[in-house]
Amino acid sequence: MDCVKNEKSAVQGAARGRPGYSREDVIRAAVRAFTARGYDATSMDNVASELGISKSALYHHISSKEEILELTVVQALSRLEGVAEEMAAADVSAGERVRGLLRGSIEVLCSDPKSVALLLRLRGNSEVERSALERRRTLTRSVVPLVEEAQEEGAIRSDIEAPLLTRMIFGMINSTSDWYEPEGRLDAEELASAFESVVFGGLAPQATG
Amino acid sequence: MDCVKNEKSAVQGAARGRPGYSREDVIRAAVRAFTARGYDATSMDNVASELGISKSALYHHISSKEEILELTVVQALSRLEGVAEEMAAADVSAGERVRGLLRGSIEVLCSDPKSVALLLRLRGNSEVERSALERRRTLTRSVVPLVEEAQEEGAIRSDIEAPLLTRMIFGMINSTSDWYEPEGRLDAEELASAFESVVFGGLAPQATG
Repeated sequence: MDCVKNEKSAVQGAARGRPGYSREDVIRAAVRAFTARGYDATSMDNVASELGISKSALYHHISSKEEILELTVVQALSRLEGVAEEMAAADVSAGERVRGLLRGSIEVLCSDPKSVALLLRLRGNSEVERSALERRRTLTRSVVPLVEEAQEEGAIRSDIEAPLLTRMIFGMINSTSDWYEPEGRLDAEELASAFESVVFGGLAPQATG
Repeated sequence: MDCVKNEKSAVQGAARGRPGYSREDVIRAAVRAFTARGYDATSMDNVASELGISKSALYHHISSKEEILELTVVQALSRLEGVAEEMAAADVSAGERVRGLLRGSIEVLCSDPKSVALLLRLRGNSEVERSALERRRTLTRSVVPLVEEAQEEGAIRSDIEAPLLTRMIFGMINSTSDWYEPEGRLDAEELASAFESVVFGGLAPQATG
């Protein structure tokens, strides 16, 4: 097992030439540490301890906490933006596009909940954080016209204004990143269906199935 | 204006004998700083700068960051627990108790969103934080049997299990603490009604107004 791990790491970590852990392993361990303690409270020392390696060994893989943040949070953000762009271009009704956005966002979130949780907790204490926060705001704002279009179409209730509905939908979806376990009992597909059903139908007993 | 402020502060801050800012002012400024930078990234120096006072003047009001956390987060938590206890004892159907819990939680949140946001971001890095997190978990768990009862009663859909429904409801409610402004356009009562309506009825166009 150790042999296989080292072989895999030797390929992935080749550029930095460290055996034992790949760059990917290091990033995953760092994100685990950030999730457990919070990003600001985690030092590179904590990340090194999490892996049982020295700080200098850690710096062979990664140059700073910020680099890890950029690699994980920005990647999650890009995938969420990808879902929004795909839906904006889809040739279906606005109501269907809202459903697609909801399902697609949950799928991104379920594949990497810890990075999304990190994104949602950023406070803007550095340039990387501020830029990610700004992209997150732009993304949320871009959904409002889609919700409005679905309201005009009659697919979504129009007694509550679109910005508030958008916040409610995203609030519910995003909170999943606090508890979802990719290895758990519930897969992304099942969770996306449950959300779609509750977001559209509410808690009221459903007429059909 | 300054005169009035000092007069008010002189009363509230009497116990610690510092003019200019009351203990309440200091706590509010600290919570603002925690919200802006994150709790772990905020030092007592930052809080002192926020108020334009020296660090030693700050320590006349408050002994530590943890004391502030305890005063704000634990207070918000106690009020949320109060809502849950009141609903557990209420002599109405389980469905009505879920609605009451939802509305009551939003009211607590709207009256002090920053303290609730702080509570939701705690990672358990100290005894105060771990104890608050444990109380938060106990509170969330205590709602599941109520949701189950409402499902048995037929007031809430039963095609999705109660723990997941509970997480969805609280996820949506809690996220309000990220953006709600008590001085803003939307009052707590209106927001609670919008949430109740969307949580129970969903996004689908509503049969009646």
